[in-house]
Amino acid sequence: MKLSITAHLDYQFEAQADVLLQLEAAEIPEQVVEHSNLAIGEHAHFARVPGQDMIGTRIWTSISGRLTIDYSAVVMINRIVDEGLDLAAVPLHMLPGETVQYLMGSRYCPSDRFHDFVTDQFGALSGGERVIAMRDWIHEHFNYVPGASNADTTAVDTFVSRRGVCRDFAHVLICLARASGIPARIASVYALGVDPQDFHAVAEVFLGGEWHLVDATRMAREGAMAKIGIGRDAADVAFMTAYEPAYLIAQEVTVTHLG
Amino acid sequence: MKLSITAHLDYQFEAQADVLLQLEAAEIPEQVVEHSNLAIGEHAHFARVPGQDMIGTRIWTSISGRLTIDYSAVVMINRIVDEGLDLAAVPLHMLPGETVQYLMGSRYCPSDRFHDFVTDQFGALSGGERVIAMRDWIHEHFNYVPGASNADTTAVDTFVSRRGVCRDFAHVLICLARASGIPARIASVYALGVDPQDFHAVAEVFLGGEWHLVDATRMAREGAMAKIGIGRDAADVAFMTAYEPAYLIAQEVTVTHLG
Amino acid sequence: MKLSITAHLDYQFEAQADVLLQLEAAEIPEQVVEHSNLAIGEHAHFARVPGQDMIGTRIWTSISGRLTIDYSAVVMINRIVDEGLDLAAVPLHMLPGETVQYLMGSRYCPSDRFHDFVTDQFGALSGGERVIAMRDWIHEHFNYVPGASNADTTAVDTFVSRRGVCRDFAHVLICLARASGIPARIASVYALGVDPQDFHAVAEVFLGGEWHLVDATRMAREGAMAKIGIGRDAADVAFMTAYEPAYLIAQEVTVTHLG
Amino acid sequence: MKLSITAHLDYQFEAQADVLLQLEAAEIPEQVVEHSNLAIGEHAHFARVPGQDMIGTRIWTSISGRLTIDYSAVVMINRIVDEGLDLAAVPLHMLPGETVQYLMGSRYCPSDRFHDFVTDQFGALSGGERVIAMRDWIHEHFNYVPGASNADTTAVDTFVSRRGVCRDFAHVLICLARASGIPARIASVYALGVDPQDFHAVAEVFLGGEWHLVDATRMAREGAMAKIGIGRDAADVAFMTAYEPAYLIAQEVTVTHLG
Repeated sequence: MKLSITAHLDYQFEAQADVLLQLEAAEIPEQVVEHSNLAIGEHAHFARVPGQDMIGTRIWTSISGRLTIDYSAVVMINRIVDEGLDLAAVPLHMLPGETVQYLMGSRYCPSDRFHDFVTDQFGALSGGERVIAMRDWIHEHFNYVPGASNADTTAVDTFVSRRGVCRDFAHVLICLARASGIPARIASVYALGVDPQDFHAVAEVFLGGEWHLVDATRMAREGAMAKIGIGRDAADVAFMTAYEPAYLIAQEVTVTHLG
Repeated sequence: MKLSITAHLDYQFEAQADVLLQLEAAEIPEQVVEHSNLAIGEHAHFARVPGQDMIGTRIWTSISGRLTIDYSAVVMINRIVDEGLDLAAVPLHMLPGETVQYLMGSRYCPSDRFHDFVTDQFGALSGGERVIAMRDWIHEHFNYVPGASNADTTAVDTFVSRRGVCRDFAHVLICLARASGIPARIASVYALGVDPQDFHAVAEVFLGGEWHLVDATRMAREGAMAKIGIGRDAADVAFMTAYEPAYLIAQEVTVTHLG
Repeated sequence: MKLSITAHLDYQFEAQADVLLQLEAAEIPEQVVEHSNLAIGEHAHFARVPGQDMIGTRIWTSISGRLTIDYSAVVMINRIVDEGLDLAAVPLHMLPGETVQYLMGSRYCPSDRFHDFVTDQFGALSGGERVIAMRDWIHEHFNYVPGASNADTTAVDTFVSRRGVCRDFAHVLICLARASGIPARIASVYALGVDPQDFHAVAEVFLGGEWHLVDATRMAREGAMAKIGIGRDAADVAFMTAYEPAYLIAQEVTVTHLG
Repeated sequence: MKLSITAHLDYQFEAQADVLLQLEAAEIPEQVVEHSNLAIGEHAHFARVPGQDMIGTRIWTSISGRLTIDYSAVVMINRIVDEGLDLAAVPLHMLPGETVQYLMGSRYCPSDRFHDFVTDQFGALSGGERVIAMRDWIHEHFNYVPGASNADTTAVDTFVSRRGVCRDFAHVLICLARASGIPARIASVYALGVDPQDFHAVAEVFLGGEWHLVDATRMAREGAMAKIGIGRDAADVAFMTAYEPAYLIAQEVTVTHLG
């Protein structure tokens, strides 16, 4: 599937500010960036650095005042899709070294606290079946409520309040997977079918020796997402991390199917 | 400085268990492991995988019942020591890609919440001076109280309670550094002068283009520590992560100065 | 039912300390204290003050060094028992003024965060049926684990960890009731059938115009408990609140059925 | 000092809703309500119940759709003002029974966690001097930032973030006082000098055998506030507690000095 992507960001800063951006589709085997263009307004500095685990790219920029960004890309998704996740979990002691960090608790995913819950609720299932059951349990019991969360909201808060947006749904699923001994991380993506269309975030779980995207909001499908970057949780994959106060002027994301 | 290290662990598990260990001194340029020996009791599986950022080694093992480990090593510390930390902070937009993750909040270090505090308290200082001031502020205002914290205790909890052990002191310092725009991570170490002697944890900050160990408990000195591993916080560098309930039978760590 | 109660406390303090005690069976219409005796070791001050909502008695004492207390009582329980709780909830706008505070969140029971959960999980039920369903849900899904909680553990922590002791079970039930619009508070009690025997804590809900004791651990029965005091949560009903560090030397509680 | 007060509330509810109001100046010895008028739009139920500790009045109402309230009052403040708080703390063991609950942690004021901090920071001071020092410390180190907090924000959050509005400043002061062994509660008030004018909340501490209002934002003075109600923290003194979703249409508060 081929996706056409645009993102427009327009922010006003109070002062000279360093800004970290991560919004370009990653160049990785599972997707081919056929075309891309990034235009950034007046700036004092621009440098690309590798993203987490060398997946995708972060941009350090330094701006004074206005930040405007226009990004467009065409991305061919070649991901091998396994929506049913008919896959086995890798035994803990067989996990590759690079997956170990995704077993650990993180800023928004204190997964170490959910052990008894996942055993009680999903103990009869394992591997892909368990992940699917956890995804569906979240989808059934949690309400998608724009504005229900903020930059402090952890998966514990969401687990109690039963409300959130895409990042919160992803955080709960990541917790439940890690607490089940399945490495899990977050992926920021451009995805078809997200309503309202915006940057999207989903969980990615390590099953059968590979990473698989799983969307607990059920808005997006694994084969119709272009990956931007990955991380332990939303702290790692913000499209913009500003180190001075900023005000939103305009932001728009579009994702369309090129057939 | 040359250190002689021993560690003895003896744990009883209820059942067959996968266990993740990280307790060997890392083979890295700043320290030479002249000799090391690891003996582990009966086990069904043993595999070494690289530690976080390829520093040090984690061990996946699978055991049934008793876990006994005897480790000994002689390590020559060649670290260039700069106790005064007369070093400049690297501007945010100049930070190397691999340091970016250590600006982000983590499980025990929600550093994003401390921005106003560090500005109010340490705003007049920068770089190494600021780190030293933060280290000394923690040392002056926090009480070292064994048993004051547990596996759920975050730097926010410690910041309020003003009590903790080495990992808690390190967590607060990491938060204050990250909130100041200085990458900071945790290092697990064997260190001379820790009382009571045990595994030790300290902060490591990125200043002047390099990582520097800083101990907010002021028990250990940068030149007298053998690094085991590093991570975002204590979740990443536990000497043992057990995936089944375990009971401590015995544990002993010794670190002596070989001259 | 008539209960014979004894409590023996023996604590060592580091220094002169003010201590707040609340351990005598309350003299209230639903139970008759036929006999009681309180002996307290050497002390510099002793004063009784009314407990929360004038139920039961708190004791302010000031001691230097050792605190020893021996309490014994015989209490006839005349409580009208309605184990089935076949009772209607009082509509919010009809609630008496003195019950309003027990709708509000408290130290260990941030009940305002559970609204969506109770609607999702128990929305089809109301009044006593709902309380019974919530009690049984807790009993089924939570593990009674001595040592699983501490003085910081809130109902949110317990809701996630699914582990705790009597106060934690009570806290979760109180949250679920309040979030359902049913006033709920904690009661400290001496209860038959608690294993291991100790001070016990249960929830008390306002249904049908009266307060009813409900034990989510299912260890004790409404008709076999002698009430000591009530409060918003465990912060209000500790048997001992010490304002200086204290060390336990001995503590024993017995509750027997006199027929 | 005589104050003229008006409050206008206009809210739209999605459905039939029970609403708890607390916005009338309390009739208590320290202030004389010379005139008051409350007009409430169409409603299905209206009942006054006593406020916390019998101070002030809560109103239970039931409405369908629109809630409009117009309140006006003239209140003569006769409070004996002691801005310097040259008063001694009452020793813990001499505290009256009705003040004991205000030593305990509450929903937004987990004061039990601040013991070491207050000892470290304010240990040399006691009584009114200590309260004044704590008030001034908050005023100096915390930023008044509208929108910085929400219904979940506790004094721990504010203590870390150093940001908040009146209720947050009051919550921190209440924590520090309780942790110092001084009973402290919140008071909702109409106050001269609040900018922007709105309902206001301040701390009230028990010193010298009486309750004294203390405003850590330093916007209002003890002698220029009309008390509405008191409670353990903001959970108890909301001017409106809605049990169904509601949308603000308009809200205005005025407080003027009649000379």
